[in-house]
Amino acid sequence: MTTYPLRLAMVGGGPGAFIGAVHRTAALMDGAFTLVAGALSSDHKKCQERAAEWGIAPDRAYASWQEMLTAEQALPEDVRAQVVSIVTPNHLHHEVAIAALDAGFHVACDKPLTTNSENAEAIAKAAAKSTGLFLLTHNYTGAPMVREARELIAQGESGPIGTVRKVYVEYLQGWLAEDLEASGQKQAAWRTDPKRNGPGGSLGDIGTHAHNLAEFVTGQRITRLLGSRRSFVDGRAVDDDAMALLEFEGGADGMLRCSQVCVGRENGLSIQVFGTKGGVEWRQEHPNDLTIYSADEGPVTRRTGNGYLSALAQSSARVPAGHPEGYLESFGNLYLEFADAIRTGGPMPDHLPSIEAGIRGVQFIEQVIASDDAGNAWA
Amino acid sequence: MTTYPLRLAMVGGGPGAFIGAVHRTAALMDGAFTLVAGALSSDHKKCQERAAEWGIAPDRAYASWQEMLTAEQALPEDVRAQVVSIVTPNHLHHEVAIAALDAGFHVACDKPLTTNSENAEAIAKAAAKSTGLFLLTHNYTGAPMVREARELIAQGESGPIGTVRKVYVEYLQGWLAEDLEASGQKQAAWRTDPKRNGPGGSLGDIGTHAHNLAEFVTGQRITRLLGSRRSFVDGRAVDDDAMALLEFEGGADGMLRCSQVCVGRENGLSIQVFGTKGGVEWRQEHPNDLTIYSADEGPVTRRTGNGYLSALAQSSARVPAGHPEGYLESFGNLYLEFADAIRTGGPMPDHLPSIEAGIRGVQFIEQVIASDDAGNAWA
Amino acid sequence: MTTYPLRLAMVGGGPGAFIGAVHRTAALMDGAFTLVAGALSSDHKKCQERAAEWGIAPDRAYASWQEMLTAEQALPEDVRAQVVSIVTPNHLHHEVAIAALDAGFHVACDKPLTTNSENAEAIAKAAAKSTGLFLLTHNYTGAPMVREARELIAQGESGPIGTVRKVYVEYLQGWLAEDLEASGQKQAAWRTDPKRNGPGGSLGDIGTHAHNLAEFVTGQRITRLLGSRRSFVDGRAVDDDAMALLEFEGGADGMLRCSQVCVGRENGLSIQVFGTKGGVEWRQEHPNDLTIYSADEGPVTRRTGNGYLSALAQSSARVPAGHPEGYLESFGNLYLEFADAIRTGGPMPDHLPSIEAGIRGVQFIEQVIASDDAGNAWA
Amino acid sequence: MTTYPLRLAMVGGGPGAFIGAVHRTAALMDGAFTLVAGALSSDHKKCQERAAEWGIAPDRAYASWQEMLTAEQALPEDVRAQVVSIVTPNHLHHEVAIAALDAGFHVACDKPLTTNSENAEAIAKAAAKSTGLFLLTHNYTGAPMVREARELIAQGESGPIGTVRKVYVEYLQGWLAEDLEASGQKQAAWRTDPKRNGPGGSLGDIGTHAHNLAEFVTGQRITRLLGSRRSFVDGRAVDDDAMALLEFEGGADGMLRCSQVCVGRENGLSIQVFGTKGGVEWRQEHPNDLTIYSADEGPVTRRTGNGYLSALAQSSARVPAGHPEGYLESFGNLYLEFADAIRTGGPMPDHLPSIEAGIRGVQFIEQVIASDDAGNAWA
Repeated sequence: MTTYPLRLAMVGGGPGAFIGAVHRTAALMDGAFTLVAGALSSDHKKCQERAAEWGIAPDRAYASWQEMLTAEQALPEDVRAQVVSIVTPNHLHHEVAIAALDAGFHVACDKPLTTNSENAEAIAKAAAKSTGLFLLTHNYTGAPMVREARELIAQGESGPIGTVRKVYVEYLQGWLAEDLEASGQKQAAWRTDPKRNGPGGSLGDIGTHAHNLAEFVTGQRITRLLGSRRSFVDGRAVDDDAMALLEFEGGADGMLRCSQVCVGRENGLSIQVFGTKGGVEWRQEHPNDLTIYSADEGPVTRRTGNGYLSALAQSSARVPAGHPEGYLESFGNLYLEFADAIRTGGPMPDHLPSIEAGIRGVQFIEQVIASDDAGNAWA
Repeated sequence: MTTYPLRLAMVGGGPGAFIGAVHRTAALMDGAFTLVAGALSSDHKKCQERAAEWGIAPDRAYASWQEMLTAEQALPEDVRAQVVSIVTPNHLHHEVAIAALDAGFHVACDKPLTTNSENAEAIAKAAAKSTGLFLLTHNYTGAPMVREARELIAQGESGPIGTVRKVYVEYLQGWLAEDLEASGQKQAAWRTDPKRNGPGGSLGDIGTHAHNLAEFVTGQRITRLLGSRRSFVDGRAVDDDAMALLEFEGGADGMLRCSQVCVGRENGLSIQVFGTKGGVEWRQEHPNDLTIYSADEGPVTRRTGNGYLSALAQSSARVPAGHPEGYLESFGNLYLEFADAIRTGGPMPDHLPSIEAGIRGVQFIEQVIASDDAGNAWA
Repeated sequence: MTTYPLRLAMVGGGPGAFIGAVHRTAALMDGAFTLVAGALSSDHKKCQERAAEWGIAPDRAYASWQEMLTAEQALPEDVRAQVVSIVTPNHLHHEVAIAALDAGFHVACDKPLTTNSENAEAIAKAAAKSTGLFLLTHNYTGAPMVREARELIAQGESGPIGTVRKVYVEYLQGWLAEDLEASGQKQAAWRTDPKRNGPGGSLGDIGTHAHNLAEFVTGQRITRLLGSRRSFVDGRAVDDDAMALLEFEGGADGMLRCSQVCVGRENGLSIQVFGTKGGVEWRQEHPNDLTIYSADEGPVTRRTGNGYLSALAQSSARVPAGHPEGYLESFGNLYLEFADAIRTGGPMPDHLPSIEAGIRGVQFIEQVIASDDAGNAWA
Repeated sequence: MTTYPLRLAMVGGGPGAFIGAVHRTAALMDGAFTLVAGALSSDHKKCQERAAEWGIAPDRAYASWQEMLTAEQALPEDVRAQVVSIVTPNHLHHEVAIAALDAGFHVACDKPLTTNSENAEAIAKAAAKSTGLFLLTHNYTGAPMVREARELIAQGESGPIGTVRKVYVEYLQGWLAEDLEASGQKQAAWRTDPKRNGPGGSLGDIGTHAHNLAEFVTGQRITRLLGSRRSFVDGRAVDDDAMALLEFEGGADGMLRCSQVCVGRENGLSIQVFGTKGGVEWRQEHPNDLTIYSADEGPVTRRTGNGYLSALAQSSARVPAGHPEGYLESFGNLYLEFADAIRTGGPMPDHLPSIEAGIRGVQFIEQVIASDDAGNAWA
């Protein structure tokens, strides 16, 4: 059995990046990983600066991800990186992922998986052939109370929710309500550039989270959707707002909305699911609360860290009830369980987001766009 | 100038009814009305029982609304009812309203105005000819913080919200999640019967409230919608759930949902509106809070009864800040302002819901149904 | 059996008053009372103006309460007022109450009962001799969820709370954070004047509510307290802030605090009670929620109007769950149940606040002052 | 300048411990520390097991803290531990801290500093002589919104709060509502044992947090208190509940309460501070919200991660607004700033909890006990 900490290399995550630092903290926080190498920026100097800041040895701060993969493979087995984290803009995901998988690395890749279905399928093929495991960091699936919701719904008619009827999911932000990309802000710049971000703006950035959350929590796939998208800010090349009606394989239906022009909203991902017997509601900004509705008693607020929760929810918390866990901890749960699968050589647990979820996420973007292009027809 | 209290007659409101008692309390609570007559039930005995309970003189507890209108007209001017409240199932609204208006009574009518556009137009014609004023009791428009939201949005670009971009409105209940009408429960029985309720089930009962709230708060009309409706409970003849995409005359768009199968949800009417500069959010179940979003400071919770509110919101509260007002008070605001218009002979204030709002509500139901019937096309 | 509406006369409630209008609405809202007479102001002209506004006949708008009692007694039995509401500053309560009781009127009196124990006992004696019933309007005891809390705790060890251990009650306002009385604001002026208000400032105005709520909800009497009071605003003659440690007859202890200098707090009355098995929490500003804590499940929010509530809580609501009731409705519950006792000639229900509660409220003020004067010793 | 990661050794933290794992995560999460050695349990076998789990080399899993200090000192400078974290039961803190400081290690010590003032002073002396820096992990002072509250209050009359008048602080838990220590639960066992925990039960465990938070947020010292303590559970040797009235050096007063018998409460630390101009409220269980009260506008909810916050609050967050940070991140902030002081050789920032805060915490426990023993007199 491989021992901790696992050696991690990162592609992306240079100065000004957001998600690279998140992956680093998520990987480090439980002591299961140590960050040993990186191709952190297309600018080698910036890579070296960040590497120094992050305690990566200078000779493992590479000029490119290609160089990194080659050089790391050449290192002794007990020194070279075992896992590659991909935290670049979306358009680079597939190339790096395929190369890393082909080279036998385990891969953790930020979402969305890539920018189109073709590339997504190519990653899936590479993963199928590789000895490396693959993790897609749909981080909200790591939140204890999201997992509790999933477990409750999975009980079906014998559980408190029953058969799912309605799914309302939304992801509302306000940070792109004005033309932020014009200011050169790095996050806004690439996320509104279809070349780097892919064709879906808000759809790719946050809509895929909402889509994934709906499928994860219900345990059901969306079979049909009717979508609409829009750019509220003049001159923006991608959508900054979208809406969709949804149908699920189990007969439920629902609504999805995502927006980046809801001024003053920070990171408003939330989901409500109602079944024949009850309902659940989760709000990302207060992630340790899960509201459970029933017909016979007032709403119950289940909370992270308590003994009354499902085994999965319990094992997803680090500290006792009342000690809030947040965004980084839910992200860390994915990394920790990924590490555990690597360490034990075991399969990835079912609840970890897989390439299949990634493919579905890319299809979601494509289908909303197709529906919108067809005058809001079902797709 | 007519003096208080005005004399009120009621049609509907017998034992087992819900909304009749609400209208009575709303009318009485500020001392502007006294209830003097009623055709409270199609069963005269029940009418008499309720009349006794409500302090209506036995000889003014009528066997039918026709009899009531005739008899009251024959009474001396300083004795006869001045105002007729219509609180029957929807299919009776138009006949009673037209007859009462034709007879010169002022009319307060519960929503929806009636069951189809044709009848709605007929009421409008009768009102135009009548000396009586007409109030449609879209009660949520009487809530102080709903009015505050409307006032803030009405300021347009010079106000804290700016030009409206997104409108999310929802009305979620759970009381019809099972086949309650089979049990003979009176409210469920008529509201799921298209003959008495009209063709829209949840659409008519609560969807019209959501529609009206969206138009009231934004001050804009919905110009186009794409709708979907459904009955989740087997054998139910009307929808118990609906969803719609909306477009507004000012360029905003949005989503509306209403459902009566969200188990455990009580009376979950809420609205969020986001503009170019900020947003507002109101939740009916905590009606004294209005959340205001902006880019430069955290969300502010404006609260009923404070001096920092608009004049309209301030005049809509009876007690100082921190003393919660609720459903009945917002209903009472409509009655009180209606009374004031009657008393002073003045016009109805613009913010009171009018026949025009009622016509639009009926059209909303019809358009969602038409869109759904057309495979969810824009209507 | 007396029939509705009962005829009400009011003492106090002139222009600028707050609580008079509240009593009027509370009395009118359910149709159980009609307001027929008033000595509404020490200024007869103001009384007449308000009477006209309120629909009281000019000849029953009296120049003084003495004149009113005499004149009303002389009216025919089916015309004269049956009930007198006392809504004056505190120092006038006892004189009016005793005279009204002696004259055989039923009396509803605002809290605190009076300004000292001696007067309180005198009222009690008058009530004992009178044929009139007496209601002290500790209105928060009329809130459905306060009553639910009381019912749950009354179940003792067989209920969800068990034996009470801790009681935390607070009442925080901010409206007297500055020297408002210097501006001539009428409410501030009399409430900070020991001659009219009594020796307790915040203690009398809001501390008594907190004290009463603690005893009402627990069903236990406070046996001992250690108090502290303070005036934060220079020159103020009464306390604007107080704190106390409490001991209850059943072995529980707790803390009480009241303040009128907590800037920005509106009307923050709240109580938490914890027992051997669970806890309850109620916040007046969101009065339809009652949080119930237990060891085995997350907190449950019981809500007004639901079938799972106690009979008392259910009968205290007018509208279905999700339709918020507020301050006026809880006040109205007291008036309605008072009316019902008058109408049926029955005794007052145990849960209605009585003279005994009023005496204890006055003693509470006196004991906090005594404890504070003794250097914060137990009293 | 020392480079990251710093090498950390831990005393305590074996299987069944709670706070050891927290310190580890807090130290690791930002990559500023690596855990290289430990005396994790008095049972060497358990120490070795945990060391293996945590990736500590077997030869640095020591049988005792004495052995660890000696052995680590003997290692080469670039290998040996630089920092010692003390996460044992309270009675061991002072011995380990003094020895570690004397040996030149930097020391991070869990709260309370120790079990009595004498030991506290001894630690202070050792720290004064040592080249090592000392951190007391009053972790809630690391929460971004706690720091924001402190910064706002520190502005005094020129800020939004003004001069502080009232401080209400509480820490309510329910986990010791029954005789948990009888079951052998490790956390309950030592925390209710005065030999290991010190004389204050709830006072030491959570009361010191509340005390520290009050002084940290206000920037003022408590000068006088009147306390009361109690054991609700039969046979418990230390308090499980306490209450105190407080006076602050700046003229404010307030109340503190802590309890471990509030069934169903998880980790309810909260503070409200009101000044002449406004107020702030923070609740640990929703740590990213800070409510700010004022007289002129409704309450504002400031939230972690926003640009409108003070520089200190901004630098205390890792991720953008709306991505919740929690208990571990606030703990991590202390470790990261401690590391930075070590790395740069600079002084500890003023806002980090120091030995002086630790001495005051121990005195707080002693004074509440003294006051209680004196019949609740001011101490």
